[in-house]
Amino acid sequence: MLEKIINLLRKEKGYLSGEEISERLGISRAGVWKQIENLRSLGYEIEAFPHRGYRLVSAPDRLLPEEISWELGTEFMGRNIFSFETLDSTMDFAYELGIKKFPEGTIVCSETQKKGRGRLGRNWFSPKYKGLYFSILLRPKILPQEASQLTILSAVAVSTAIKEITALECLIKWPNDILVNGEKVGGILTEMQAEIDAVRFVIIGIGINVNTEKRNLPPQASSLKEEKGEKVSRIELFKGILQKIEKYYLLFQDKGFSPILQEWKRHSSILGHQIKIIAHSKTIEGEAIDLDSQGALLVRKDSGFIEKVLVGDVIKVY
Amino acid sequence: MLEKIINLLRKEKGYLSGEEISERLGISRAGVWKQIENLRSLGYEIEAFPHRGYRLVSAPDRLLPEEISWELGTEFMGRNIFSFETLDSTMDFAYELGIKKFPEGTIVCSETQKKGRGRLGRNWFSPKYKGLYFSILLRPKILPQEASQLTILSAVAVSTAIKEITALECLIKWPNDILVNGEKVGGILTEMQAEIDAVRFVIIGIGINVNTEKRNLPPQASSLKEEKGEKVSRIELFKGILQKIEKYYLLFQDKGFSPILQEWKRHSSILGHQIKIIAHSKTIEGEAIDLDSQGALLVRKDSGFIEKVLVGDVIKVY
Repeated sequence: MLEKIINLLRKEKGYLSGEEISERLGISRAGVWKQIENLRSLGYEIEAFPHRGYRLVSAPDRLLPEEISWELGTEFMGRNIFSFETLDSTMDFAYELGIKKFPEGTIVCSETQKKGRGRLGRNWFSPKYKGLYFSILLRPKILPQEASQLTILSAVAVSTAIKEITALECLIKWPNDILVNGEKVGGILTEMQAEIDAVRFVIIGIGINVNTEKRNLPPQASSLKEEKGEKVSRIELFKGILQKIEKYYLLFQDKGFSPILQEWKRHSSILGHQIKIIAHSKTIEGEAIDLDSQGALLVRKDSGFIEKVLVGDVIKVY
Repeated sequence: MLEKIINLLRKEKGYLSGEEISERLGISRAGVWKQIENLRSLGYEIEAFPHRGYRLVSAPDRLLPEEISWELGTEFMGRNIFSFETLDSTMDFAYELGIKKFPEGTIVCSETQKKGRGRLGRNWFSPKYKGLYFSILLRPKILPQEASQLTILSAVAVSTAIKEITALECLIKWPNDILVNGEKVGGILTEMQAEIDAVRFVIIGIGINVNTEKRNLPPQASSLKEEKGEKVSRIELFKGILQKIEKYYLLFQDKGFSPILQEWKRHSSILGHQIKIIAHSKTIEGEAIDLDSQGALLVRKDSGFIEKVLVGDVIKVY
């Protein structure tokens, strides 16, 4: 009902009388008033003018499902949205939904996370109302060893969306960092439940520092606001990312991984560069020459020998 | 307390008086009597003789934790045992324990399963009190693409244990079938929760038709009892399998996958044979020549070309 009222107000340029709302939605005038109050408590600014009615002045900068799904225009992405003020981890919650057979495209987001996760058990810092911290449930028909293709796909989608919405140049640092001006503004985490022969479901976790102040970020991290010099709409960015992920995911299902990989190469911050990488407590130096079809990085060392790196951290790019 | 009494009676060759039990365990005579009744209701046959006391005549053929752990002698395997009369699936329950951070070697078994799972969403038929249906929680430090090594390891352990306990020759049909006299008596299922870069935990599911009658089995399936012509102790077999899995798992951690692979090759029903295999709805014929370090089967086709099969069903062995 809340969503219905807010959508009515959104469509209406001017004022909408309580009577009209009451008629269109089949609820009492007192009911309308109560819902308006509820909306205000969520942060919607709604003007009430005697004899003319209500007018939506502004929507809150909050990850409310009705804000995310408004004109989202996707086929399946975001059809179920679970939005929280606070959660231990959107990954864990999405896992539960995966086990409970929720469909592809189910989204879990939270304004803050108490135990936000990064790769390999690291933490993801999630200051409240400042970033986007969300997980997406997918059910791709792939093998476990192909799951990193979805990290690649999501990185392409996120960097494309950031560029379209903020006009900032955005690059991907293998395997899962999103960079603006060489600084990390986001990361992608892919987890799965799988048999040997088949992935049962995948959870893509995305964390983006949107409006976080630099003083509230770990060193070497930045935010879109810091890089752009002005606030960025979290809702617009969220919707843009969901749309892009759906777009690339449908492309992936239709044409396979190859077009995604091509896109990734255009966005890579390291391909063609000399890099230093730590893999299994061993340091490898060389030129990042390619990414293979399973998401492994190929590094040509000074000896000329090409090493395939499945897991690692790029610590320096020359 | 039940476990303490049964272990006292087990150690005692002759009779043990109620008074002595009461003293040794620090419980009342009435308490002893009550526990003896409880044990009887579990299926323990306990003789009571006036002025002499209690004597254990036989233990029930039931998967009780105190029976499984009695003289099990393992380091970590089976230190936690969850035993059920009935369960939807031991896999699902073990998954929950994995998420709740239970340690390696935690076991979930059930006398019957309502929704026993096989590979690729197939069913596993679990008639009550007839077979072994259990799951093992492991936390190996491996990549997702290495998880099939644990299917291989478990298949080696199961076939070795069956051979030692029943004296039946036991072979492994890639990827996960256990055969006696060419008939399927068991299967192994490996599932995991993983990041791209690291497995968080693995659940090994093992199903064995022990004392099931052929008429109660699907076609092409058999049981150890049918093949041997006499009943097999489920508890002895269970303990034997747990011991072998621990042994090979410790070897795996110490020396890597290579010695396990060698053992597997000795137990394979298909290596060196012409086979027909269905992989991704395509039929491949050729000689099964090897298994690679990620558990993929190498098939040399008539053309001489060697095909690497990651997922498939061997439908005929010549």
